[in-house]
Order: sequence, then structure tokens, then C-alpha cells
Amino acid sequence: MNRFVYLDNNATTKVSDEVKSKVLPFLDLQFGNPSSLYQHGAKIKKEIEAARKNCAQLIGCKEENILFTSSGSEANCAAINSAIWQFPNKKKIITSKVEHSSILEYCKMLEARGFEVVLLDVDENCQINLQQLAKELDKNTAIVSIQFANNEVGAILQTAKLLKIIKEKKKLFDFVYHVDCVQALGKTDLKVNKLSADFASFSGHKIHAPKGIGMLFVKQPSKFVPLVAGHQERNLRGGTENVVGIIAMGEACRLIVEGLKDNVEKLRKIQQFLEEELQKLGGIKINCQKAKRLPNTTSINFEGFEGNKLMFQLEKFGICVSTGSACNSESSKPSYVLTSMGLRNPQNTIRVSIDENTSVSQIEYFIKNLKEVLKGEEK
Amino acid sequence: MNRFVYLDNNATTKVSDEVKSKVLPFLDLQFGNPSSLYQHGAKIKKEIEAARKNCAQLIGCKEENILFTSSGSEANCAAINSAIWQFPNKKKIITSKVEHSSILEYCKMLEARGFEVVLLDVDENCQINLQQLAKELDKNTAIVSIQFANNEVGAILQTAKLLKIIKEKKKLFDFVYHVDCVQALGKTDLKVNKLSADFASFSGHKIHAPKGIGMLFVKQPSKFVPLVAGHQERNLRGGTENVVGIIAMGEACRLIVEGLKDNVEKLRKIQQFLEEELQKLGGIKINCQKAKRLPNTTSINFEGFEGNKLMFQLEKFGICVSTGSACNSESSKPSYVLTSMGLRNPQNTIRVSIDENTSVSQIEYFIKNLKEVLKGEEK
Repeated sequence: MNRFVYLDNNATTKVSDEVKSKVLPFLDLQFGNPSSLYQHGAKIKKEIEAARKNCAQLIGCKEENILFTSSGSEANCAAINSAIWQFPNKKKIITSKVEHSSILEYCKMLEARGFEVVLLDVDENCQINLQQLAKELDKNTAIVSIQFANNEVGAILQTAKLLKIIKEKKKLFDFVYHVDCVQALGKTDLKVNKLSADFASFSGHKIHAPKGIGMLFVKQPSKFVPLVAGHQERNLRGGTENVVGIIAMGEACRLIVEGLKDNVEKLRKIQQFLEEELQKLGGIKINCQKAKRLPNTTSINFEGFEGNKLMFQLEKFGICVSTGSACNSESSKPSYVLTSMGLRNPQNTIRVSIDENTSVSQIEYFIKNLKEVLKGEEK
Repeated sequence: MNRFVYLDNNATTKVSDEVKSKVLPFLDLQFGNPSSLYQHGAKIKKEIEAARKNCAQLIGCKEENILFTSSGSEANCAAINSAIWQFPNKKKIITSKVEHSSILEYCKMLEARGFEVVLLDVDENCQINLQQLAKELDKNTAIVSIQFANNEVGAILQTAKLLKIIKEKKKLFDFVYHVDCVQALGKTDLKVNKLSADFASFSGHKIHAPKGIGMLFVKQPSKFVPLVAGHQERNLRGGTENVVGIIAMGEACRLIVEGLKDNVEKLRKIQQFLEEELQKLGGIKINCQKAKRLPNTTSINFEGFEGNKLMFQLEKFGICVSTGSACNSESSKPSYVLTSMGLRNPQNTIRVSIDENTSVSQIEYFIKNLKEVLKGEEK
């Protein structure tokens, strides 16, 4: 039987044993409605608030600034939605060509409704064109949304120079700054105040919590305009709380707080080993090698091999990698991220994304079978 | 030790053993991203589609008309949001005074943004003022949203006369008709085509699935404007799918399809027993007794006793009931539903909401302790 070697942690992660143990009682035994006034409900509210505290601690904010959502995508859309209603007279939205599909699709929808959407260019290392940002960011801008790190190539887009522009423009006029941190959480020390962010998005299933839970950092809750109306989440989001998801998110964040330094070191070591082994193969290029990158993401460009074919061949050996974002995988078009970076053969790419449990032995297994696959494809 | 008698199933329900068993593997072992192209992801997509089929069967529609959301509240807001963008020139929204807070709060927000919101009156049996509906429903109306049954009093608002008005007006001009079915699912045979609904909302945690999953019936997916953008759910909703939630929803719906007839009969019998016992107490009135009601909901008005006090006294005996909707319970104001119905002492109310597992013995325990509590309060 084949081994199962999962190297697609940017698509989704496995729920950790700790998170699973923590949430199981809330799946059925502890089932009260957190908004109910009797104890069976009220004690669940307390658990939710304890989870919120862990989340707040991880990203360096107060509990009142954490809004639980159903996904990173919802958090992204909620940030933009709030911004355009906070500034009803500002009709410009600035983001980049390499943002997550939830941002780009939401912007497309707004464009059709009369908004001006500016998609900033990136260079071959997935770095934002800052001149363009400085030029476009004017008093008609409601929101600037730039991701912390890209999910396909792992490049970190947040830089001191970018922040300087945001801060300087903020002195001149009002707009909101949103940072999509979904892919970065747990892979770097990420504090929202250092980003000067008004909004920041996060997702649970990228950090070993289940799918269906996300969160939005909201710097000024009093100005927030909800995407889903109702009395939960201090009137910021309606809908009975996803108790299992929220408690899982809290536990996942607590585990990151506890282990971040060690985990990042582990990831860096494995990534380094992986990339050294890849370089030995020859005929490959690691994308964004000149950029600061997340320690868990390696995007590999092959000379003369299609990523899709490699992916399906590797699957035969029980190895999961991807060619791009799972959120766009149903499309047959080559990755818009890689295309925007000016890659000549974007379709010749696979992405390896590890987690803190990925071992040297798993990487060796991957490399060994990748060699076989490349040999087979050459024939 | 006290018994635990949960009579607040309109606030939330316990996840059933069948649902729990079904979803457990998807909490950690089956963790792939449904959008991933390899088998580890693709087989989860198949499970999602199987769940969708069960949901579609229950409400009598095709799979393509089912959109999974994070809650009934999200489904409600998504329906209104889509309607106002489908008809950018129509600025009127018609709903009723007794709708769920997610509807009313969303409408309030839109009112502040220049929309005209008409809140239809209801009578003492929670029945819509149909003359008012007929008068207000004009070509400037983007959406009419009326619930199937009210969550606080259990009255069924959908009537033949109401539907006749909707159908006749639809011949004259275009608008969308939304039915919030959250509280009715599983308690009555509910088919969306019989409602002439363009949209219908549902929630998982009211039918023994976990919190954090809901669904929206979308009659014309091609016209739907998403609340959360992205490529999932056939481009109708972004965000990696809440796999556990969706599979739970599918199983909960399958169980309803299987057991609906028996369950409704069980509920009716227990409800009848409960209400007969209550009448024997004297000094109480069952709200909406002249209306068709859900077989699981009994709203009780007491002469001279505050609902809140009774609720907390009953809690001492391990009995959970509520005074109104959990979604508004943090407010100290009396229920807007009961107030809109013209109840003289809305604060003197408790709601008992049973499920198909509620037994005669549990009702006897409730009645016995209610008597004690009423005696104690009289002193």
C-alpha cells in the first residue's frame, strides 16, 4: 500500500487531535444556544469568549475586535462590504492582481455596479507595484486590500515600503486598509497593529481547525457595517454561533501561540531541505525565490512538464500537491497569480505546502517519486 | 440530581446520534478540500453532492437550487441582498413585523441607505394583514419576505390567500418572493414549489445538525447575486465548504424525509397533551390558538407571572424553556413578536418547543414543576 503524504496544506489542513478533542463535547452534549439565558446556553457563551481571547492573543488585539465568520472568504467580503458602506461617496477599490478569488470576484461584482476597481500589478517576485499604489490611492478610495502572503507562491507582500505609503496617505484622507492574512497565520509572527490594518482576515481550516470558520479583525467595531445582520457577535454578525467552529478556532490559535517559534523553525528546515533536493534535480525553478516567503510554501516551475500531469502522477504514489489554489482548481485556465507575475509557462507549476508535521522522510518520499514521475513523463 | 428536560428546541436542537456518526470521519480523517482535483478532495465533493441531494429531496427541488450557507440568518440576508441587486431600480422591501431579527436588522440597515421598508402588521393570531400586502406590493418592490411559521408563537403565516396575492401580483410585475422556512422544516411537509418561492431559507441547528450550517433555496441560480463571492457552490458562494456542516445537513434532511409523517404525529400528540395539561392549570392562555400552528411550539401567556422569572425558576429543576427568540434574548425589551400581535402583557410569556424525542413523562415533569413554581411565585 502507498503511503499518504499530504503536501497541500495551503489548500486545507487536517484538524489536529487537540482541536478535535476540544470540540467533540460541543458537537452534541454541550448543544445549548449561546444566546439563551439559562446556564445550558450561557456556559457555551463563556467558551466562545474564551476562544475569542485566544484568537485575540495570537494576532495581538482585544477580544472586542474579533468577529467570527464562516470563512476567510466571508471575512474578505465583509471587509470590503463594510468599507463601501462606511464611505458611501467613495467609489474606488484598490487591490492587487494576485489576491484570493473571493476578493477579486467581489470586486468584479462591484465593478459591474459602478465601482472603480484598481488591480495593482506585481513583479516576478509577486511584489506590489508601489508606484502604482501611491498614484492610485486617492481620496476617492474606500478600501485598499492587500494580502499578507500569497497562497500560491508563498511570497510575502507586506513590506515596510508598502506600509509607509498606507500610513502617509492615511494622514491625508480617510480610507480603510484590509490585509488578507489567511495564508500567513501560524507561519509567521503576525500582529495586526504592526500592519496598520483596519481589517484583517483569517481562516480556521488553514490552521488545523475545521472548514466553515474564519475571523475578521475589526479595528473599529462601531463603524462596521455587517454583511449578515442580527444580534450575535455584539450586533456585528447575525446567525446562531458556529460553536464547534469557534471553539476549534480558539484552540487552534492557542496551539499556535504556544508553538509558533518552534513550528516556524521546523517549517524552515524542512523547506530548506525540500528546496535543496529540488535544485539537485535540475530543470526546475522555485518561484519568487528572491522574495521573502512563507516557510511552508514552495512553488516549483518545471521545464517542459505540465503541473497537472505531475500532480496526477504523484497522486498514484499517495502524494497530494496542487497546481494552484483549490479555490480556482475547477477552472482549466492557468493560474492568474503566476500569469500576473509574468511567468512564461505558468501551467508547468506545482505547489508544495507543508505543515509542522511534515517530516524529512516524507520529503524524501516525495522527491524519490517526483524523480520517477519526471522520468516517466520524459519517455 | 435533577433531570434535564430540554423544551427549547426552537432555540436550537441537539445533534442527533445519526448525524454525529455520519460527520465524525469528516472532522479529521476525511479532511481534503472538496475543490482539490485529487481523490482525497474529490471524494469529499461527492459526499457534499450526496448531502445536497437529500436536502433537495426534502424541500422538493433540484440539487442545483440548493445553496449551502453558514446559517438561516445568512440565507435570509443573502436572499434580500440578491433581490436588491437583481432589481437595482426597485427600492421597496416588504416584510412583516414578526420576522426573524436577521431580516428586520438587515432591512433597518437598508432603510438607512435609502430603501423603503414596509413592515406588515399582524393580528392577534400572528396572521399577516393581507389588505396591506395587496396595497403595498407594487412595481417598485424588489422583494417580499414572509416567514413560513413564526419561531416564537409557532403560528403558520403562509396561507392560500397570501399566496394568491403573491401570484396575482407576479403576473403584473417582477419581484422576488422569499419565505423564511427556518422554524418550519421538519415540523410540516414543506415543498418550495407549493410556496411559489423564489428563495427559501433553512437552518441546520434547528433540525439536529450542528450550528454553523444553513441553506438557501434559489429558484433561478443564474440571476443570483452572491453575498460572499468566490468559486465554490457553482460560483454562488465563496469560501471552502463547511464539509462537516453540509454533510450533517444532508443527513438531518435524510432523516426528516424518512420520519416526517411519524414525527409530526408524535409532536401533535405531545403538544395536545401539553396544552390540555396547561389548560387545567387555569390563568393561562395559549397564544395564537386560533391559527394553524407548528406541532412543536406552544407559547403560553400567564396571568400575573413574568416569563423571565418562571424561566429561571424552571431552570432550577433542570427544565429549559425560553421567553422568546434566543436571537433577541440579550435584549431586555419584551418580544417584538408578541407586542406586534397586540398582546397586553407580552412579558408574561414562556415558549415551550418540543422535538420528536420529547416524552409524556418529560411534559408531566414540566407541568408538575411549573405548578410548584407558580405556587412559589404567588407567595
